[in-house]
Amino acid sequence: MVSSWIRMACQDLEISSPDTSCADAVRRAWDLRTKPPGSLGRLEELAVRLAGIQKTPHPRAARRVLRVFAGAHGVADYGVSAFPGEVNAAMLANFRAGGAAISVLCKLGMIDFAAIDCGVSKPTRPLHLEAAMSEEEFLEALMLGASSVPDEADIFALGEMGIGNTTAAACLSAFLLDRSAEAVTGRGTGIADEVLQQKIGVVHQALVLHRDAANGDAGEWLRRVGGREMVAMVGASLRAASRGIPVILDGVIATAAVAAAVRALPVLQHYLVAAHLSPEPAHGLLLDALGLRPLLDLEMRLGEGTGAALGMNLVQASVCLFKEMATFESAGVPTG
Amino acid sequence: MVSSWIRMACQDLEISSPDTSCADAVRRAWDLRTKPPGSLGRLEELAVRLAGIQKTPHPRAARRVLRVFAGAHGVADYGVSAFPGEVNAAMLANFRAGGAAISVLCKLGMIDFAAIDCGVSKPTRPLHLEAAMSEEEFLEALMLGASSVPDEADIFALGEMGIGNTTAAACLSAFLLDRSAEAVTGRGTGIADEVLQQKIGVVHQALVLHRDAANGDAGEWLRRVGGREMVAMVGASLRAASRGIPVILDGVIATAAVAAAVRALPVLQHYLVAAHLSPEPAHGLLLDALGLRPLLDLEMRLGEGTGAALGMNLVQASVCLFKEMATFESAGVPTG
Repeated sequence: MVSSWIRMACQDLEISSPDTSCADAVRRAWDLRTKPPGSLGRLEELAVRLAGIQKTPHPRAARRVLRVFAGAHGVADYGVSAFPGEVNAAMLANFRAGGAAISVLCKLGMIDFAAIDCGVSKPTRPLHLEAAMSEEEFLEALMLGASSVPDEADIFALGEMGIGNTTAAACLSAFLLDRSAEAVTGRGTGIADEVLQQKIGVVHQALVLHRDAANGDAGEWLRRVGGREMVAMVGASLRAASRGIPVILDGVIATAAVAAAVRALPVLQHYLVAAHLSPEPAHGLLLDALGLRPLLDLEMRLGEGTGAALGMNLVQASVCLFKEMATFESAGVPTG
Repeated sequence: MVSSWIRMACQDLEISSPDTSCADAVRRAWDLRTKPPGSLGRLEELAVRLAGIQKTPHPRAARRVLRVFAGAHGVADYGVSAFPGEVNAAMLANFRAGGAAISVLCKLGMIDFAAIDCGVSKPTRPLHLEAAMSEEEFLEALMLGASSVPDEADIFALGEMGIGNTTAAACLSAFLLDRSAEAVTGRGTGIADEVLQQKIGVVHQALVLHRDAANGDAGEWLRRVGGREMVAMVGASLRAASRGIPVILDGVIATAAVAAAVRALPVLQHYLVAAHLSPEPAHGLLLDALGLRPLLDLEMRLGEGTGAALGMNLVQASVCLFKEMATFESAGVPTG
């Protein structure tokens, strides 16, 4: 099945557990800094986790990389979105011209940004009628994603765009969480009630079509209902983790795709940071299942990695504080 | 009473309501940007509020200013804190040397930063035994705060430091919210159970001492139980609001001080942005009473303006997105 492909996809895929002694060293070192112990709250835990993932007592956040994976979904022609499929190519150009939300946020946050064309002019097949991708297409997208991670990245963040992909994420979430179409299907870009009903119907149809065929294999679910941009995010996450690079998740689409990979390869979970919570109903359910707590809850539902970029800023802040704060000793501050 | 002083403190104090037509113009203009309507969630509302406060359809966030107001509290000698009062002067030096958490965050966020000595070597009188400040001292701190706001600031954020000031904030919160000492007193820098009981006792004693004397005047409460850094934050907030500059709140101490000013001058509420929620029990209660929703909830309880600095980054992101994103028309993206 496809999950064994996920495991084998990157020849160099050797993902080990985080280094707990590095994490512990950072946890102890925080308490030397000029602040009450634990008073930076969840910011402290970020540098601790990074140390474990990067396997160093000196966590790094200087080289921050975000990639937006752009795809196209055949299901977009079946009345599930507020936007037409032509938006994909136009938005890809907009990313590159600097006019998209994620382009602006990456520029502001000095995040290395690029948009990866995973096939905006090559929509997947309609997921409620047949498998979205062939095995060859799946593997191609997986490798494309893996190749998008620069070796020198300190942190890697996932973004995506693809009209129709909240429908794909809903299907995948339903499989992963064993939930109904109603429980996991949301309004995506902001569809009206009537369109939502149509979308739920499409998701339900896909669940019936693919449920038994995938035989519980998460990678096979992803091939059958996912999009190329989702598969690419899996490839990127696996490559990043194998290099000791933390992966910042964005919204429901990135999270669903990576959750499928975690099902196949549980160690991947340790490399994930949940940047934010979106209002899509499946997102909170997936994060709970992954044991991840989002850093932000700003009701953002744009995708593109916009939540991930803001979360990355917090990770960077954590590392800068850890590196640059004085200690009680160096600053001559009494400890009580 | 002292509240009339608050109203008169800055000669030029003319605080008008935000401009709703500027806010509405920004709200409409967001929908022209290349994203589904409303999909940037609470980030969109920030630029809308800034436009109203700054009274322009072109909100600005280029000149971001944060001031840390440092004080000293006589009550710190009565077993309410994990740290000794000598920490105040040492931390003031640490702010200025760049080793404190807020120094690091302001450098990272390119925020204009300075620490204001409101009297670290001149503790207030013990608030549970007598009034913390004289009327003259109160007015002096108010003017010092007002003078700390640069006219050219686009956004102004409040930070503070002063061992013992969560005790002061608890007393003030109890008055403002009509709550018991138990309901508003928290662990501050992280005190143990025994110290917490001592602290609750001190707060209770202060409430009994000052309850009737202040005759319901929020400014007088502030004079009796507050600290110079808290009064200075009131002066700074009033001056900022009178200049059309939004005020970013930090944790419970900034919020309690400014809530007292809002009681005296309700229009000030419109100028406030709640950056984060701290675990101090009074903080959430105060924000609810002010009708403010915090942007972040990272369990931070350090003070210094650390939460405000992170919130300021989000305000800046909102303004940058609004200013720099392409429109559907300019980018040639179909709208559906």
